[in-house]
Amino acid sequence: MHDDFKSAMRYWESGVCLVTATPPGQPPIGIVCNSFTSVSMDPELILWCVDHGSTVIEAWRAIDAYALHFLPGVEHPLRARFVQRGGNKFAGLQYEINQHGSPIFPELATRFDCVLHQRITLGDHDLMVGQPTSITYPTSERESSCSSAASSTKIPSS
Amino acid sequence: MHDDFKSAMRYWESGVCLVTATPPGQPPIGIVCNSFTSVSMDPELILWCVDHGSTVIEAWRAIDAYALHFLPGVEHPLRARFVQRGGNKFAGLQYEINQHGSPIFPELATRFDCVLHQRITLGDHDLMVGQPTSITYPTSERESSCSSAASSTKIPSS
Repeated sequence: MHDDFKSAMRYWESGVCLVTATPPGQPPIGIVCNSFTSVSMDPELILWCVDHGSTVIEAWRAIDAYALHFLPGVEHPLRARFVQRGGNKFAGLQYEINQHGSPIFPELATRFDCVLHQRITLGDHDLMVGQPTSITYPTSERESSCSSAASSTKIPSS
Repeated sequence: MHDDFKSAMRYWESGVCLVTATPPGQPPIGIVCNSFTSVSMDPELILWCVDHGSTVIEAWRAIDAYALHFLPGVEHPLRARFVQRGGNKFAGLQYEINQHGSPIFPELATRFDCVLHQRITLGDHDLMVGQPTSITYPTSERESSCSSAASSTKIPSS
């Protein structure tokens, strides 16, 4: 019946995102997933799901912030890099560090810099509920298609 | 900043689903949303989000089962019907009732017949976590594109 679940899910269209974080005292971690949705407007909340089978599940459980980037297309090279299991996925990559210590890839035009709002265990996954403190997105269709310049809005902490 | 949240979310690709249910002692309810994701494989769990601003939020909070259908394309007539606020959305529609009392539209090829596993309040929405008891999906690409015949698998209760 797991096969039916997977087969049915093939008919759900969705984007792909890259989530990055730095657990305290540890090297950065990153994961590609499509189990993402926005949840709430007030406060603004998003969530994504991490599999308990992740090789670094304990590191994900130690984070208090993450950056979630939308990947423009399944062929993006960062997707291939981050779908690998294990190893140092950040080796040789150019990235920056945001205000919460999370690695960010500014060339990815849509990004939510989040603090962790809540972690909820559901079955064999954890829901990672994040509250964005700044949101970056393309400022025009042209910029959207080439994923370069972007608008960045910092949300004042309340 | 809500505008930035909405603007950024425009860059997330996702399908659209139609969720239906029958609250005890009340007429059927239905809603269109794209805040859906699969969550867990063991047990199988999915979730979608309902806005506290829904005109029938108390009815949604009373359900113990729902059926979640994938809508094939934003132009589907059931989308236009169910995005309306208020009124009897089911008036004049042909539908069936599944094993949990939820209205179902068999012409929609991908469907999860669920019992409610958990309802979780997060900000101004509730996460409606469902456990599928049967899953229907297209059995071939041809059937997928015309959304007619479909495979239906009943999951034995454990």
